[in-house]
Amino acid sequence: MTLDELQVLMGELYGEADAARGVPSTVAWLCEEVGELAQAVRKGTPDQQLHELGDVLAWVASLANQLGLSLSEAADRYVDAPPA
Amino acid sequence: MTLDELQVLMGELYGEADAARGVPSTVAWLCEEVGELAQAVRKGTPDQQLHELGDVLAWVASLANQLGLSLSEAADRYVDAPPA
Repeated sequence: MTLDELQVLMGELYGEADAARGVPSTVAWLCEEVGELAQAVRKGTPDQQLHELGDVLAWVASLANQLGLSLSEAADRYVDAPPA
Repeated sequence: MTLDELQVLMGELYGEADAARGVPSTVAWLCEEVGELAQAVRKGTPDQQLHELGDVLAWVASLANQLGLSLSEAADRYVDAPPA
């Protein structure tokens, strides 16, 4: 799956709910999922970690959609000029 | 860019440093970047938001690499059985 495809998928699945929720609530939800990922990394199974990685990715993509920004473009910085 | 390509790129750029740092420190760093993203969303420019989205993606990919997990597989859950 490409980053663009991920964003399109999230827009199809959740774009309407995202717009109704608004950006600050999406940030809050992303933080909640990052907490769940941290917990799964500390004491979860690989399946649980995979689940939480997916949720974090999904919320990052939903947030990018709401901001009108491209994850692919964001990632390109690591191709063109990766931080040391 | 595909999710697989993102993980390969992060492994090439940072795999050695990631392994030396260890998983808990990677989780801590991811959380730091999520905080920077939250701040950029609240009061940053679109360029700053794009920058921080890229950093969060990069750390999620580095973490997945360290856990031996596939972001592509993680995202596939949203294709096969998306949460409501």
